[in-house]
Amino acid sequence: MLKLYTYFRSSAAYRVRIALNLKNLAYEAIPVHLVKDGGEHLKEDYRRVNPAGAIPALADRDLTLSQSLAIMEYLDEAYPYPPLLPPDPAARARVRAIALDIACEIHPINNLRVLKYLTGQLGLSEEQKMAWYRHWVELGLAAVEARLAGHSATGRFCHGEHPTLADCCLVPQVFNARRFACRLDHVPTVVRIDAECRTLPAFAAAAPENQPDAE
Amino acid sequence: MLKLYTYFRSSAAYRVRIALNLKNLAYEAIPVHLVKDGGEHLKEDYRRVNPAGAIPALADRDLTLSQSLAIMEYLDEAYPYPPLLPPDPAARARVRAIALDIACEIHPINNLRVLKYLTGQLGLSEEQKMAWYRHWVELGLAAVEARLAGHSATGRFCHGEHPTLADCCLVPQVFNARRFACRLDHVPTVVRIDAECRTLPAFAAAAPENQPDAE
Repeated sequence: MLKLYTYFRSSAAYRVRIALNLKNLAYEAIPVHLVKDGGEHLKEDYRRVNPAGAIPALADRDLTLSQSLAIMEYLDEAYPYPPLLPPDPAARARVRAIALDIACEIHPINNLRVLKYLTGQLGLSEEQKMAWYRHWVELGLAAVEARLAGHSATGRFCHGEHPTLADCCLVPQVFNARRFACRLDHVPTVVRIDAECRTLPAFAAAAPENQPDAE
Repeated sequence: MLKLYTYFRSSAAYRVRIALNLKNLAYEAIPVHLVKDGGEHLKEDYRRVNPAGAIPALADRDLTLSQSLAIMEYLDEAYPYPPLLPPDPAARARVRAIALDIACEIHPINNLRVLKYLTGQLGLSEEQKMAWYRHWVELGLAAVEARLAGHSATGRFCHGEHPTLADCCLVPQVFNARRFACRLDHVPTVVRIDAECRTLPAFAAAAPENQPDAE
């Protein structure tokens, strides 16, 4: 059985949980606590799974994969049905670009380790940290909205009538935005698609509050 | 002919230039200056090409693509030879993970707009900004090194004997690391592969100093 090294609140793990559920792939969840004891992901035990010490990692038999987007692309290649990417190269590029708008332009800047650097090494206040967080989320989601709103390929989901990699990234990012009280009134298409996705069992089962390690 | 909206020093544009050259695809370079007049990429003219205002964008007939990794995946699907990804799903996942170690974990945190926020909104010193920059590059490249060093799939290049997406991301990141005097003595495999890549004309022709808009 597939094994997912996960943390209930990790946005990157949340993406992969959605992808696994959309593909009806059963998996064993192995929780790795990102906060307790300075972070279990940085301890030697987990470094043996993923030397970079990042969550998630997916073990498929003798193979261990990391980087959430690479894991989802792998799942789409190794377990093709239902697909997480459309068949046409131009459409695939659009889906990947939306996913990367989130995974490259928003999430890394607001990662736990970056926030820790702001308040630790740089001695910034909690208020400055939260302003930073909201700045990048609100700006980044505006770019996603510009890509989605009024585009003929946008459908019930980010691309057409079936969930794709883009939706797997969108929902965890909106979850984080709500958790930290970011503005969302400027991104109505993002909000509409997020709500649409969360009606599906694959998304609901992947939500942080429904994980075995939820607090 | 393909058109690439590019800036000589943009690391993401540099990746795509390498990929285009590796595939022997001729393209017209349309320079977009990221610094002059507060950034041409943020003006209305360029927003019509890419609403997110990010460099690079690639126009292929009536299609305009953005996000460097999505562009490179598109090129690999639309113009398959020579491939930028190996055929096997596990190997593809490894190549993509290395590319994402750079494109998600290092580059976004040190993007121009992030550095501007540090010295602008947060009022940090030039010295604090550079310490930030080096911290994330040195830490991030250490994670890449851990993935490459001693791994049986690492060859002349990041994965085997042919350049892949991973090398397209590695070389621009090492270029940036050198430009800002980051430590590299802890990442000998990264340094060795970077040197190997730069002996190839496809990489050399894509280098910032060889662009029409180089300063």
